[in-house]
Amino acid sequence: MLPEPIFDLAHLGHMELLTPKPEESLRFFVNVMGMTATARQGDSVYLRAYDDYQHHTLKLTASKTSGMGHMAFRARSPQALERRVAALKGSGFDIGWTDGDLGHGPAFVCQDPDGHKVELYYETEWYQAPPELRPALKNQASRFPARGINVRRLDHLNCLAVDIKANRIFFQDYLGCRLTEQIVMNDGSEAGMWLTVSNKSYDFAYTRDHTGTRGRFHHVTYAVDSREEVLRAADICLEEGIFIETGPHKHAVQQTFFLYVYEPGGNRVEVDSAGARLILAPDWKPIVWTEAERAKGQAWGLKTVESFHTYGTPPVEVKKS
Amino acid sequence: MLPEPIFDLAHLGHMELLTPKPEESLRFFVNVMGMTATARQGDSVYLRAYDDYQHHTLKLTASKTSGMGHMAFRARSPQALERRVAALKGSGFDIGWTDGDLGHGPAFVCQDPDGHKVELYYETEWYQAPPELRPALKNQASRFPARGINVRRLDHLNCLAVDIKANRIFFQDYLGCRLTEQIVMNDGSEAGMWLTVSNKSYDFAYTRDHTGTRGRFHHVTYAVDSREEVLRAADICLEEGIFIETGPHKHAVQQTFFLYVYEPGGNRVEVDSAGARLILAPDWKPIVWTEAERAKGQAWGLKTVESFHTYGTPPVEVKKS
Amino acid sequence: MLPEPIFDLAHLGHMELLTPKPEESLRFFVNVMGMTATARQGDSVYLRAYDDYQHHTLKLTASKTSGMGHMAFRARSPQALERRVAALKGSGFDIGWTDGDLGHGPAFVCQDPDGHKVELYYETEWYQAPPELRPALKNQASRFPARGINVRRLDHLNCLAVDIKANRIFFQDYLGCRLTEQIVMNDGSEAGMWLTVSNKSYDFAYTRDHTGTRGRFHHVTYAVDSREEVLRAADICLEEGIFIETGPHKHAVQQTFFLYVYEPGGNRVEVDSAGARLILAPDWKPIVWTEAERAKGQAWGLKTVESFHTYGTPPVEVKKS
Amino acid sequence: MLPEPIFDLAHLGHMELLTPKPEESLRFFVNVMGMTATARQGDSVYLRAYDDYQHHTLKLTASKTSGMGHMAFRARSPQALERRVAALKGSGFDIGWTDGDLGHGPAFVCQDPDGHKVELYYETEWYQAPPELRPALKNQASRFPARGINVRRLDHLNCLAVDIKANRIFFQDYLGCRLTEQIVMNDGSEAGMWLTVSNKSYDFAYTRDHTGTRGRFHHVTYAVDSREEVLRAADICLEEGIFIETGPHKHAVQQTFFLYVYEPGGNRVEVDSAGARLILAPDWKPIVWTEAERAKGQAWGLKTVESFHTYGTPPVEVKKS
Repeated sequence: MLPEPIFDLAHLGHMELLTPKPEESLRFFVNVMGMTATARQGDSVYLRAYDDYQHHTLKLTASKTSGMGHMAFRARSPQALERRVAALKGSGFDIGWTDGDLGHGPAFVCQDPDGHKVELYYETEWYQAPPELRPALKNQASRFPARGINVRRLDHLNCLAVDIKANRIFFQDYLGCRLTEQIVMNDGSEAGMWLTVSNKSYDFAYTRDHTGTRGRFHHVTYAVDSREEVLRAADICLEEGIFIETGPHKHAVQQTFFLYVYEPGGNRVEVDSAGARLILAPDWKPIVWTEAERAKGQAWGLKTVESFHTYGTPPVEVKKS
Repeated sequence: MLPEPIFDLAHLGHMELLTPKPEESLRFFVNVMGMTATARQGDSVYLRAYDDYQHHTLKLTASKTSGMGHMAFRARSPQALERRVAALKGSGFDIGWTDGDLGHGPAFVCQDPDGHKVELYYETEWYQAPPELRPALKNQASRFPARGINVRRLDHLNCLAVDIKANRIFFQDYLGCRLTEQIVMNDGSEAGMWLTVSNKSYDFAYTRDHTGTRGRFHHVTYAVDSREEVLRAADICLEEGIFIETGPHKHAVQQTFFLYVYEPGGNRVEVDSAGARLILAPDWKPIVWTEAERAKGQAWGLKTVESFHTYGTPPVEVKKS
Repeated sequence: MLPEPIFDLAHLGHMELLTPKPEESLRFFVNVMGMTATARQGDSVYLRAYDDYQHHTLKLTASKTSGMGHMAFRARSPQALERRVAALKGSGFDIGWTDGDLGHGPAFVCQDPDGHKVELYYETEWYQAPPELRPALKNQASRFPARGINVRRLDHLNCLAVDIKANRIFFQDYLGCRLTEQIVMNDGSEAGMWLTVSNKSYDFAYTRDHTGTRGRFHHVTYAVDSREEVLRAADICLEEGIFIETGPHKHAVQQTFFLYVYEPGGNRVEVDSAGARLILAPDWKPIVWTEAERAKGQAWGLKTVESFHTYGTPPVEVKKS
Repeated sequence: MLPEPIFDLAHLGHMELLTPKPEESLRFFVNVMGMTATARQGDSVYLRAYDDYQHHTLKLTASKTSGMGHMAFRARSPQALERRVAALKGSGFDIGWTDGDLGHGPAFVCQDPDGHKVELYYETEWYQAPPELRPALKNQASRFPARGINVRRLDHLNCLAVDIKANRIFFQDYLGCRLTEQIVMNDGSEAGMWLTVSNKSYDFAYTRDHTGTRGRFHHVTYAVDSREEVLRAADICLEEGIFIETGPHKHAVQQTFFLYVYEPGGNRVEVDSAGARLILAPDWKPIVWTEAERAKGQAWGLKTVESFHTYGTPPVEVKKS
């Protein structure tokens, strides 16, 4: 009998996005995405989508440049958090405990082989809607905003990395993340990986940085309820003058229906819909996409835009890897 | 520190539906719901939706009357299955091991306080699509049928029971199911419960049988990708002469967008869409609906149809509890 | 060879809605419906949906009570307007010319047999969006608002009347409207009529006032692009505390997907989607619904709410006809 | 006062599509598009979508090569047909009367300056559904098929032409078609035109054939009820191995949401949704797109595929004009 898989992380909890244009970025997330600011502190504004149950899922921090400050996963229980910390300690990936932040308790910080900061925490502050944002249905975290794209909840994020395989092993072995899909090139090297800790088909993804730069960020994604709403999001971004990089279209990988735009600070943001697709099998066998299969482009034939492999934040001068 | 929650069941695996009109029921599931028959054996036909990963999620069995033969949950691992069996043995709810069935390995059978049969299993047969049903995208279990309602996957089921509280305690304590929403009447009695073992907001529900009969079945539900497809399902049922009991509309409880129909054998079947709603919090606090809140009807004001409280399978002569 | 049908009216141009709560009504149309105020004059605010090409399609006028001030049709040409005026003059239904109003030129006013005021005009002011409302695509009248329900354009209106047949003959003979569907009771009396002057399956409808009152108003309808948006409109009205009378559901008559709410002034307002359905046949044979057919309720079985036959504006004490 | 515009044509009635692979093409239209064959005669099969009111809207004819046999418009009345015939006679574009065809009466045939055949007719056979195709709702021409893409009705067609301006003048002057949008290049030449005879924003379009060939066909389009259904159409074409040329995406011109595929005979076929967009203004001012505006691609930024300017049927060896 195989050892049991690890189920210690519950879900992607939040991420910190750095922006050199904090006011414009904030307006984008509030007016275009339809999110709400819960708090401000120092150089940061804490934001959430209308059905995110936590104090925030996005920490937007003014910075000299763009990119990701850190990502954070919520553990399933205090014990689960302890197990992950015990596994990480002395691994060389561990950094140590922080006291936490607005909205959540103590967090253990580590870094992946590419240098992205990853926080693990359990204690969290459940969002309490003020009267004017209280929902009509008590099983919803706050009122449907009826403003802009009306994103429902944080869905996933995507980092760029130089060595995908090393990162995959890190997330599988130390954090118990499960690989659901991956891209393996003809030379055997790995070019992309999609991992989950929940029943979503992925909570985060890593794809190869063709510029050869370490530690960069690709995009953060918020989910809406339907593909129709992703189309409407494109209509809204067009009206608002937000740059649409690609989509709406359907990914072959994971079948996600997507729209990619750049927020004013330069970070790529996705609005997506997965339909009813979930990974329910606890022993899901990873789907492996070959180089030839990926060359076909997205599900319905749209070619993958070149910037998808090179544009990340912070920006770098492009040099082919 | 509280003991850790149990995460031993992965998802609702399948259910057995009894029908006195096996051929008509089969035509309904194949032609109207858009499902596929994987196998036939004895009095049963084994069916699945196009993205169900297992051999079957519905076992349709010819019978003198309608109702549910059994429900089955897949465990997260062999060890998890053993833990649940150990907990059940000697509880008085345990029945014992079976050798399994077409499509899955050994199953441990128990019964809930109301007498519904519940199977637990781990070993399962992954569906292998024949060439004509092979999907274009390899991350999908089989080809999109483009026939009828095109249901994507098994979503949940709903039983009727006399004593909701007793059943709730059984499923929480012995199987580690998590309560996400419930109805509690003014007199403190429980009238409905929604439980999950995954990130779906519920994998099954129990509601009070107003006829006071034990062991009956309320409905089984298959999910489609969007609310628009639920509307289309109603269009199709109208054309096919399938009785529509209520909907399409949005439940206040769980916010599910629903359509309820009766398949030719008399069993209630639901087509639903949950949008992007998931329960990601591992410590979700159950939503409690009061009698007054439920009296408001469904989300947008539709009154709950009376038959919802009395019509179940097998049918009984209605006597108010 | 039959005489040629009349094609002198182009479309429903606008309607005047009376409200005893002008500020609340205005907030409803702007914030919930997503419309824009073009102008204010006297007791009236002039409003339009984002793709209405005219200065306004709704004139909202403060008044002691609710109801319709008048409806107005735009003629296809100056000559077409003259022909209709010539037909009406001396008919007993004619009232006479007005100088027009903000947004349109001279109008000929008449009244139907039930006493509703009807204006005919040709000269109209095309809406010119100010810079902040200029659309990204130049074939759209103004920017998609991304606020509330985001109605696209005026669709139709519905009056109540005591004598449906008399009104039908008036609109057919004097205005060249074409009957597309109607309800005829077992006793031969007419209970409802749907007429068009365009390729929409109806530009207005009249249904019998079961209170026996003359000159009342049933509802005005704005169209959105999809059924999904009608569902979202219900979500929004629920959040905003707007009373939902019935729906979302699909009418059997005309197959319109509908949501009926009451705006704060008491007038019934509909948000609808007709999908791709159009009446292209110039010689469409009216669909006649019998009493038995109507007793089946709406398309998917929802019973027609009783208030649909009695609630109109201005309100009256209900006495069955 | 200007002369009155001509309103003599009611709508695009049908078109004849030539195919060198008649059986494969037929399977495509029946199984993938969800259409129904009404009749067969000689080398032709007559097809319709489920809500087309006529005997057929597509005549599929076996032929040595692909392309359009003819297009046909239905007149608003016998008198309207006579007026158009009187205008055409002696114009040099007139060919003469035919006795009609299965499904419609006598037709007057003419040809546009590019050599495409155009028929005008009034008498038509209304489709009578056999019992198994009778709809649940009597205001629908036949049963919703619940098969494949489920197209609702013929929407429009698109021809290629060498001289767009000459064709525009022909359709405006002789047939009373109204120009709603057009593309005018920097040198003043016209590159595309969209014309309507109804309230649809276009009943047909002509775009410049970059190969310089006369008389070719670009595509025929059937409408579905929502953008979501166009997305689903793409899913279905992917599964069926139907070549997707471009889309789903939204045109900047006319805002149509589109999917373009090639049917097995080589002809381009579109599935579209216009949402609630209609041209209601009888004096609509044509939208003129410049070369620079068109260079931006489609509404959300998708580049117009090169084959759109060169691929037509019958195929020719591409030589840039």
